[in-house]
Amino acid sequence: MPDATRRLTAEALGTAILVATVVGSGIMADRLSDDVAVSLLGNTIPTGAILMVLITILGPLSGAHFNPVVTLVFALRREIEAGMLLPYILAQIAGGIAGTLLAHAMFDLPILQVSQTVRSGTGQWTAEVVATAGLLLTILGGLRFRAEAVPMLVGLYITAAYWFTASTSFANPAVAIARSLTDTFAGIRPVDLPGFIIAEIAGALLGALIGGWLFARERAAAAPLTVPQS
Amino acid sequence: MPDATRRLTAEALGTAILVATVVGSGIMADRLSDDVAVSLLGNTIPTGAILMVLITILGPLSGAHFNPVVTLVFALRREIEAGMLLPYILAQIAGGIAGTLLAHAMFDLPILQVSQTVRSGTGQWTAEVVATAGLLLTILGGLRFRAEAVPMLVGLYITAAYWFTASTSFANPAVAIARSLTDTFAGIRPVDLPGFIIAEIAGALLGALIGGWLFARERAAAAPLTVPQS
Amino acid sequence: MPDATRRLTAEALGTAILVATVVGSGIMADRLSDDVAVSLLGNTIPTGAILMVLITILGPLSGAHFNPVVTLVFALRREIEAGMLLPYILAQIAGGIAGTLLAHAMFDLPILQVSQTVRSGTGQWTAEVVATAGLLLTILGGLRFRAEAVPMLVGLYITAAYWFTASTSFANPAVAIARSLTDTFAGIRPVDLPGFIIAEIAGALLGALIGGWLFARERAAAAPLTVPQS
Amino acid sequence: MPDATRRLTAEALGTAILVATVVGSGIMADRLSDDVAVSLLGNTIPTGAILMVLITILGPLSGAHFNPVVTLVFALRREIEAGMLLPYILAQIAGGIAGTLLAHAMFDLPILQVSQTVRSGTGQWTAEVVATAGLLLTILGGLRFRAEAVPMLVGLYITAAYWFTASTSFANPAVAIARSLTDTFAGIRPVDLPGFIIAEIAGALLGALIGGWLFARERAAAAPLTVPQS
Repeated sequence: MPDATRRLTAEALGTAILVATVVGSGIMADRLSDDVAVSLLGNTIPTGAILMVLITILGPLSGAHFNPVVTLVFALRREIEAGMLLPYILAQIAGGIAGTLLAHAMFDLPILQVSQTVRSGTGQWTAEVVATAGLLLTILGGLRFRAEAVPMLVGLYITAAYWFTASTSFANPAVAIARSLTDTFAGIRPVDLPGFIIAEIAGALLGALIGGWLFARERAAAAPLTVPQS
Repeated sequence: MPDATRRLTAEALGTAILVATVVGSGIMADRLSDDVAVSLLGNTIPTGAILMVLITILGPLSGAHFNPVVTLVFALRREIEAGMLLPYILAQIAGGIAGTLLAHAMFDLPILQVSQTVRSGTGQWTAEVVATAGLLLTILGGLRFRAEAVPMLVGLYITAAYWFTASTSFANPAVAIARSLTDTFAGIRPVDLPGFIIAEIAGALLGALIGGWLFARERAAAAPLTVPQS
Repeated sequence: MPDATRRLTAEALGTAILVATVVGSGIMADRLSDDVAVSLLGNTIPTGAILMVLITILGPLSGAHFNPVVTLVFALRREIEAGMLLPYILAQIAGGIAGTLLAHAMFDLPILQVSQTVRSGTGQWTAEVVATAGLLLTILGGLRFRAEAVPMLVGLYITAAYWFTASTSFANPAVAIARSLTDTFAGIRPVDLPGFIIAEIAGALLGALIGGWLFARERAAAAPLTVPQS
Repeated sequence: MPDATRRLTAEALGTAILVATVVGSGIMADRLSDDVAVSLLGNTIPTGAILMVLITILGPLSGAHFNPVVTLVFALRREIEAGMLLPYILAQIAGGIAGTLLAHAMFDLPILQVSQTVRSGTGQWTAEVVATAGLLLTILGGLRFRAEAVPMLVGLYITAAYWFTASTSFANPAVAIARSLTDTFAGIRPVDLPGFIIAEIAGALLGALIGGWLFARERAAAAPLTVPQS
């Protein structure tokens, strides 16, 4: 296993590039179009693409969580050392914030900003529960049946979730915190963070619960005929 | 093989997430754009993406049919137990309806709705026959020659079929029923369901017939030189 | 090797579905948008996607050429029997025409049409030479180094070529003939066919020539260090 | 290993097709749409697609750098002979320029042009440093952990970087030089080249430095549990 320094660097660097992509492509897309759906396409496609890249190249170093609730679930499943939980989360949050600042620097915007975009209400919170539960199901099912496809699966899942959840699927507390520091397309008001983060933790635990039962190894000894386990 | 409970859960859950994606991304895309082609792109890309994810992670549990006519064809081919035909179909229909309700909840819309979108006529029915026949050819050909690629093939096929069929390719009675319960972008009037479902059954049988002959194992002993079977 | 009937059926069926996708998605996209680039996206994405599907499921039966100049090059390279050249081409042309008629039927349009879209001139012919040469390089290089990726490579190549060639990359005489029979987004005037077909033959021979030298087996005994042959 | 002639041909041909795609799809997209974000989508998708094709079919011959700073880094890492550095770079520049001229020929534009598009300033240069560093991390991490995925990873990375960097991610001095010779969507003023090229060299060295440490073989002996090295 890589040493702790490189694992934490991988988490921080990966979250930074992920957030720089989310925020940066949001700024680019919003500047270039008056059609918000076109802007969301210009935000979705880069995000899905960079996730596939980052998880492929950093997954073998740190697991490529880039997401505190993913690390939390792996800690609960004892698939990562308990002592690494907090360092991982701090690295993710620090990396995410650096990603926002980097996006601002590239687009010649004030480095320090605070979002004014309201994201709140039952629909949004329901969406974050669904989005995060689905993310965990994707990760746990992918690891169970086709581990080498996890980078593609996560990228595709987020591509879909940007559109089918009313919240555009933050599904990640570190990314949510980082996005509270940009008053651009991808922003979220700091005051709306607690609702999102609680919903994300709830969704992650729900997804881990369903996935833990559905993808349990001892009971799924053999695959059915029609789609062979590969 | 996984136990029946998990197989049926996988079918219900998969169909629910599939329908939540179809309906939810339709709502999102329609809200954000005045250009219907942009909205259809925002509906197509998430649908194709989530299909690849769901078939990959749930295929090893239940076969990931999410579609009564697919289950019907597998039952006719004796590749699923006859006794599971009805439970599968019921799980798919129940899951699909739950997916519509979930999408409404996330987008703060009335939970119970009835579609008023007219989808009828010879062109639409022809399109559904073609769409469903093509889907079965994709599944049967994929299973025959490259089973591990079936999730990607089905996702890509539906991506194409959303655009090349005049009906935007429902190709699935459970999804059609679920879509009759939303008066949004993806809806279909309940009164138009029988025409669609009959066309989908006809298309599935046609696809199974052509595919059964074209992809028969005993006659395709060796692949030609130019594209090796892999 | 599959029998001749199934090989020719695969070529006809594949070309039919390919053309139905090109013509059908063009009709759909053109109806739904006033922005021609959005329409071209709605034409490009389905075409690339269906190519990946069709080549994967029909390649092991017939090679999945769907294209007279591809069959011609394989015949010249003695990788398909000379006696199959004409039957393949006839199956491709017949299938392509059937695909156009099917698209018209699905979209409630007059079945028989003649295109009035002018596609002519030095730029267009240069584009067709480039498009077809690039297609052959993609196929020959793919078969040489990663045969199982050919379906994806061809789909991706055509996705790119729709945009980087001024002609939107017909690159296929059977498809060109079929597209002369639709007066919709994807059409081409019958009188413009000879220019396109001559350019496509020239491009195919050029691509085969360059590819024959570049990808020759005896001289490329080992791959360089930086990207291992896989 | 292939002989030098074929390696240099592969570099020149690949860079030519890459630039023809970047410039040509830019012309096509810009002509067809008034929405600049739609045009950028029509520029992004073909570029990502053709990169996957070109690196797959030409990688085994030359490494498929198509980029002087990539060749420079491989020379510094002694993964390509020092004597090939200059020939590679010359082939890339010549190929790139040929690609621009070819795009002009296909679109019936004056063959020789000089760009008037201003691309300058701290934000743009920062963006080029980030874009090129990320490209090198993608390549080095991909080669380290999943070499056969490098074509897809580079295509996906550039897809993302077109949107998340303020400069639309040139990240390639040969492509930048070629793009200075077109006064169309993808152009850059010749006077702005030095700033871009210096930023790209700096970014490449930065990416090589971080990647050299992060992906070093001796220290990453084993992968963590959650995403197995494949």
